[in-house]
Amino acid sequence: MQQAIAILDSGVGGLTVAKEVMRQLPQEKIIYFGDTARAPYGPREPYEVIQFTHQIVDYLLQFQPKMVVIACNTATAVALDEIRARLSIPVVGVIHPGARAAIKSTRNGIVGVIGTEGTIRSGAYELALRQISPSIHVVSQSCPSLVPLVEKGLFRSEDTLEVVEQSLRDLSRLPLDCLILGCTHYPFLTDAISQVMGPRVTLISSADETAREISTILYHKGMLATSNRVPVHQFFCSGDPFLFKQIAQSWLNEETRVTPVVWQVPHII
Amino acid sequence: MQQAIAILDSGVGGLTVAKEVMRQLPQEKIIYFGDTARAPYGPREPYEVIQFTHQIVDYLLQFQPKMVVIACNTATAVALDEIRARLSIPVVGVIHPGARAAIKSTRNGIVGVIGTEGTIRSGAYELALRQISPSIHVVSQSCPSLVPLVEKGLFRSEDTLEVVEQSLRDLSRLPLDCLILGCTHYPFLTDAISQVMGPRVTLISSADETAREISTILYHKGMLATSNRVPVHQFFCSGDPFLFKQIAQSWLNEETRVTPVVWQVPHII
Repeated sequence: MQQAIAILDSGVGGLTVAKEVMRQLPQEKIIYFGDTARAPYGPREPYEVIQFTHQIVDYLLQFQPKMVVIACNTATAVALDEIRARLSIPVVGVIHPGARAAIKSTRNGIVGVIGTEGTIRSGAYELALRQISPSIHVVSQSCPSLVPLVEKGLFRSEDTLEVVEQSLRDLSRLPLDCLILGCTHYPFLTDAISQVMGPRVTLISSADETAREISTILYHKGMLATSNRVPVHQFFCSGDPFLFKQIAQSWLNEETRVTPVVWQVPHII
Repeated sequence: MQQAIAILDSGVGGLTVAKEVMRQLPQEKIIYFGDTARAPYGPREPYEVIQFTHQIVDYLLQFQPKMVVIACNTATAVALDEIRARLSIPVVGVIHPGARAAIKSTRNGIVGVIGTEGTIRSGAYELALRQISPSIHVVSQSCPSLVPLVEKGLFRSEDTLEVVEQSLRDLSRLPLDCLILGCTHYPFLTDAISQVMGPRVTLISSADETAREISTILYHKGMLATSNRVPVHQFFCSGDPFLFKQIAQSWLNEETRVTPVVWQVPHII
């Protein structure tokens, strides 16, 4: 099936999902939307995030995608069920894949979760983990300082390690054996997070795991792309297209064509 | 949904899938069938394996399972499509989950596969891997000496390492960075295989990965068990129930009730 996979995020974080989809499913075409004008979503009220997610999905539906991926943990936490109920195509979020991977990985049953305020406040990871495995012990913490670093492209700055150290100081003292990166921005900071948490803690990237589950679902629905032609991906963003392009090219290691989108409806900032 | 997951195998190999399902999905009830009277399936003709698989599925359907798992690579390779076309419940095999995990894991794009003669001859792993990622390089090898060791419960014998070393000598010299254990018996031999292949090669257990995908599929279909009661699993085997019980209890670390089944139709041995 040659239609594209639509991926949406509050900004550049979902590029971690896009990159893994490109690597794990090289025949699939991607249409990506980063709502950089309104990022971060983490501190916003749920009703705003739900409204923004519907708006982006409406925009992406013009391209008739075969699947919608909500590559933002905050939006998945509050809007996944609504979007899934509304569309007839598969809708995939990033929370359950990370939860399932953590359950597969953990040996001592103590799982850490880091995410935005919105994601952690929603309790969506605890719910996903305990729905499957009620005896799992979950330790959650919001890390509001991390997304702004990534959205500014500062994921290799000198301050990064210091900010990550401050954010994870308490968690790193607990006996958890795996840590879910419950925000698609965090894989940009994997080196620093890994350094702070130490070698005994397995990092679970909800981005990588989501790409794997996209592959599973497309296969089971008979919807995998079958053409050997190299797909041409499309990127859209609502904010500064030059900054977006710079971050995207650096992360994806390839030339990226970015189309700016100006919201025609007033937006709440 | 409180109905059981039916898992079938040529013998005890599928217990590696069952064990992971119990760990990753502790609320799910399992009905397991090991066709130990006719194991191994690896050297058999495809028409025989297809006939046996239909027969076991017929037996298991009396328990009205919500899903059938063909936890045998040989049977998956030749019978998955037929069984899937025949049943209205989800049917999961063990080949595609291993293939997807290898694609996620590999960094150099060179993937090794070991399996029975039947699995390797079918080319099912190559097909599954290249369907998703055409540029993957696949090196396959059949290891007919390994399944008989496991079926006799000799997975911790002194000879095991020597047999594994002989089987994997050629593969261990190639630059692959992950190796798919393309037979559900092989996780019993993980220590020896890991020792021979060395620390740079990631071992992909099709058993672990299948349990993970069972979780994914049950979630997406709204079919996860919701009761907190500890499920009571049921085991059936067509051969010696005492040997089966001994291997099952040693592998699963729990008391196992095994019911012997005598095939009423003549079987080809």
